[in-house]
Amino acid sequence: MDKINLTLLTDFYELTMANGYLENGLGDKIAYFDMFFRKVPDNGGFAIMTGVEQLIQYFKNLSFDERDIEYLRSKGVFSEKFLEYLQNFEFRCDVWAIPEGTPIFPNEPVVTVRGPVIEAQFVETMILLTINHQSLIATKANRIVRAAQGRAVMEFGSRRAHGYDGAIYGARAAYIGGCVGTACTIAEREFNIPAIGTMAHSWVQLFPSELDAFRAYARVYPDNCVLLVDTYNVLKSGIPNAIKVFNEEIVPKGFRPQGIRIDSGDITYLSREARKALDEAGFEDCKVVASNSLDEYIIRDILLQGAEVDQFGVGERLITSKSEPVFGGVYKLVAIEENGRIVPRIKLSENVAKITNPGFKQVWRFFDKDTGKAMADVLTMHDEIIDESKPYELFDPEHTWKRKTVRNFKAKRLLKKIFDKGSCVYKCPELSEVKHYCQQQIETLWDAVVRFENPHKYFVDLSEPLWEMKQELLQQHSAK
Amino acid sequence: MDKINLTLLTDFYELTMANGYLENGLGDKIAYFDMFFRKVPDNGGFAIMTGVEQLIQYFKNLSFDERDIEYLRSKGVFSEKFLEYLQNFEFRCDVWAIPEGTPIFPNEPVVTVRGPVIEAQFVETMILLTINHQSLIATKANRIVRAAQGRAVMEFGSRRAHGYDGAIYGARAAYIGGCVGTACTIAEREFNIPAIGTMAHSWVQLFPSELDAFRAYARVYPDNCVLLVDTYNVLKSGIPNAIKVFNEEIVPKGFRPQGIRIDSGDITYLSREARKALDEAGFEDCKVVASNSLDEYIIRDILLQGAEVDQFGVGERLITSKSEPVFGGVYKLVAIEENGRIVPRIKLSENVAKITNPGFKQVWRFFDKDTGKAMADVLTMHDEIIDESKPYELFDPEHTWKRKTVRNFKAKRLLKKIFDKGSCVYKCPELSEVKHYCQQQIETLWDAVVRFENPHKYFVDLSEPLWEMKQELLQQHSAK
Repeated sequence: MDKINLTLLTDFYELTMANGYLENGLGDKIAYFDMFFRKVPDNGGFAIMTGVEQLIQYFKNLSFDERDIEYLRSKGVFSEKFLEYLQNFEFRCDVWAIPEGTPIFPNEPVVTVRGPVIEAQFVETMILLTINHQSLIATKANRIVRAAQGRAVMEFGSRRAHGYDGAIYGARAAYIGGCVGTACTIAEREFNIPAIGTMAHSWVQLFPSELDAFRAYARVYPDNCVLLVDTYNVLKSGIPNAIKVFNEEIVPKGFRPQGIRIDSGDITYLSREARKALDEAGFEDCKVVASNSLDEYIIRDILLQGAEVDQFGVGERLITSKSEPVFGGVYKLVAIEENGRIVPRIKLSENVAKITNPGFKQVWRFFDKDTGKAMADVLTMHDEIIDESKPYELFDPEHTWKRKTVRNFKAKRLLKKIFDKGSCVYKCPELSEVKHYCQQQIETLWDAVVRFENPHKYFVDLSEPLWEMKQELLQQHSAK
Repeated sequence: MDKINLTLLTDFYELTMANGYLENGLGDKIAYFDMFFRKVPDNGGFAIMTGVEQLIQYFKNLSFDERDIEYLRSKGVFSEKFLEYLQNFEFRCDVWAIPEGTPIFPNEPVVTVRGPVIEAQFVETMILLTINHQSLIATKANRIVRAAQGRAVMEFGSRRAHGYDGAIYGARAAYIGGCVGTACTIAEREFNIPAIGTMAHSWVQLFPSELDAFRAYARVYPDNCVLLVDTYNVLKSGIPNAIKVFNEEIVPKGFRPQGIRIDSGDITYLSREARKALDEAGFEDCKVVASNSLDEYIIRDILLQGAEVDQFGVGERLITSKSEPVFGGVYKLVAIEENGRIVPRIKLSENVAKITNPGFKQVWRFFDKDTGKAMADVLTMHDEIIDESKPYELFDPEHTWKRKTVRNFKAKRLLKKIFDKGSCVYKCPELSEVKHYCQQQIETLWDAVVRFENPHKYFVDLSEPLWEMKQELLQQHSAK
């Protein structure tokens, strides 16, 4: 596939606004934008921050080539001054982001951009696109992995992904979220995510009989033989033929059969019968793999019913996050600079939950020093310091009489600087580290936050100074 | 962003099978595969075939580079013979596809591939990925466009797309499905899809007041001024300020205001009030644009309630096909060649609806010569001829006593050859032609097939010879 420059993967209004800012002499006006989201998909208790590495690549590659400029000129709406500005475009923003793999919660900034308003505004579409997509899939994958209760989950969804990147970055996000591997081969070449797969029904159909097909496969892959047993009839033909071939082709060569896969029918019943037959044949170590339109709800259900499945292959419902395919991250102006002073901005709404948190902020996570558990996140002014040696009073920003003083805590800043005046100052960890970190961080959450149904709402509070500044802005607006 | 070689965007099992075929001496075995789907998303009456142009690009670019081979060698499961085969890989298949923009129905082949089984199998993942994604979005977009009853629908979803290609090819598919334009700028540079957009809330917030913000915009774009009126309060501030600025900055310069956009709140109520205010101010020609989590259901509903909206901007629910984000196309072996003879293959299933239609086939669409309306599709053996000069008896393949003789019809072959022994033999029409053709073809469908709720099931029948061959195969299998 051809290489294309993605700088113009942006909503057209970013460009009309940019041109408008320049024409109004506001090109160098410094602005602050936050990306945040308002609701965890599937009514879950938390989401997983994912996509920062790709976002960094985007910022690094941001530039307008001749073709872009020619195209924009042809629109007839942009000034030559603006086109010249774009030709010389260099990304000069400061950017902060919460590292990949971190559990994130509604209404806290997960990316903050500070810089000339043209630039800080322009990057909106790609920030949202990148973080929304990968965080959606990582969050969904983690739900599915948790439902599997320690059994391996493999990502099998490329064929139903929304485009090529949907498959590739979806596989990446699923791996961060806890999948052990993917069917998407290129994701191993690009990201070292273990690529897995054995045979489709067509393999079985191509041979004169299922037995022939199994034999042919076992001869080529005696050391890694997983047979798909549902092309004709799982119990009457698939399993007996598999056992026959294991005994004929695998065991005599000193190997053990790796597994059988069931891709249709009643997984609970078929997996139990398959387990029984395999055990009776002396293949207690042979794994039962299940696939076919699975998700966290079905996996939980069939395990509750006693399905004997060791590994799950999960496709379309993971790669599209079928039950909720939208991660609604938004990107809002939160401050501007005037004469070097930061002036907060607020977006009002009749819906109180949609009023933004103004100002240039930091996100702190409070951990209990004894249990290691996360207690709350607190948004503060960016330069506020939280003194761990003193008790800290948390309060609900809506119902301020709900207060709680915490002691013996560790407070960690979540937003890390990733770009300084346009230069990358952050080294992305290896993907395997991100995956490990993600698992570790989820373990700091209380079970009540992690559960599927009606999870406990994790506290995302405001510091006293931030809360007061917000109230002041609200009063100013209401006075107008 | 660098575009990478996508040859390895394939399920890993395509590779294990390919290696296995080669090792079993079946590398040059000729096989036939069909892509088809079983269910129209959202319980609609038809889907729209989309993605053929990208599929053609994929076939043209198919080759394994050094990095691919090195990676595959590192897996330790492939023979050197196989790796050498891949190094010299040249796509030699024949491919047929239904042209983009054509309404398609469950259980009919929309792509057929004939060639050496290794190759014909290998391309499965990308065929499904490409056609599933774009057909999903085109089908959804068309539902939304139909709900808008002639009002313009613009695609605004990039920020919620599943990855970069999800946004770009999603915009392309939405355009084919009937959208008039997109916010996704790069889609205009790449595909000439009109890119549209004006301002975000942040534009309004950046200025000291809404009035200042509107004035600043109107001065730069007097000839194309659409103002976003819901940053503070649509009726109390947004509309009055817009009208003021139209009168001050637009009209005196000899232009007319283009529109106002409402992106939150009760669209029905606000649009009616906005319309009234604009009309009273003498701006009857100023359009009311609505956005904010719209889809075909909401659009139908607010129009039924009398909303006065002229244009819709539709984002996340279109670009993800939120109500049903999976287009379940599958790719099945339907025949092999033995000594030059085509031997059909069938995939059985306990679920009768999942039994495949075997053999190398053609799809014919019957049009009534008087009305021009599509009457039925008939799957035939590939070389069957339908004689339009004679009456033709259609029959239901499940309930064969349901029969109907048609006369005075035109029968058109839908599957067109796009590759001949690996060479492209098809010239893709311009995108604007595809869009036009799509609209035209949908008009050949009876209203009963097109409606949203409980559409009439369009006939997809089998010819007598195909039906008999299928019965024979079923009997053979049941006898085993």
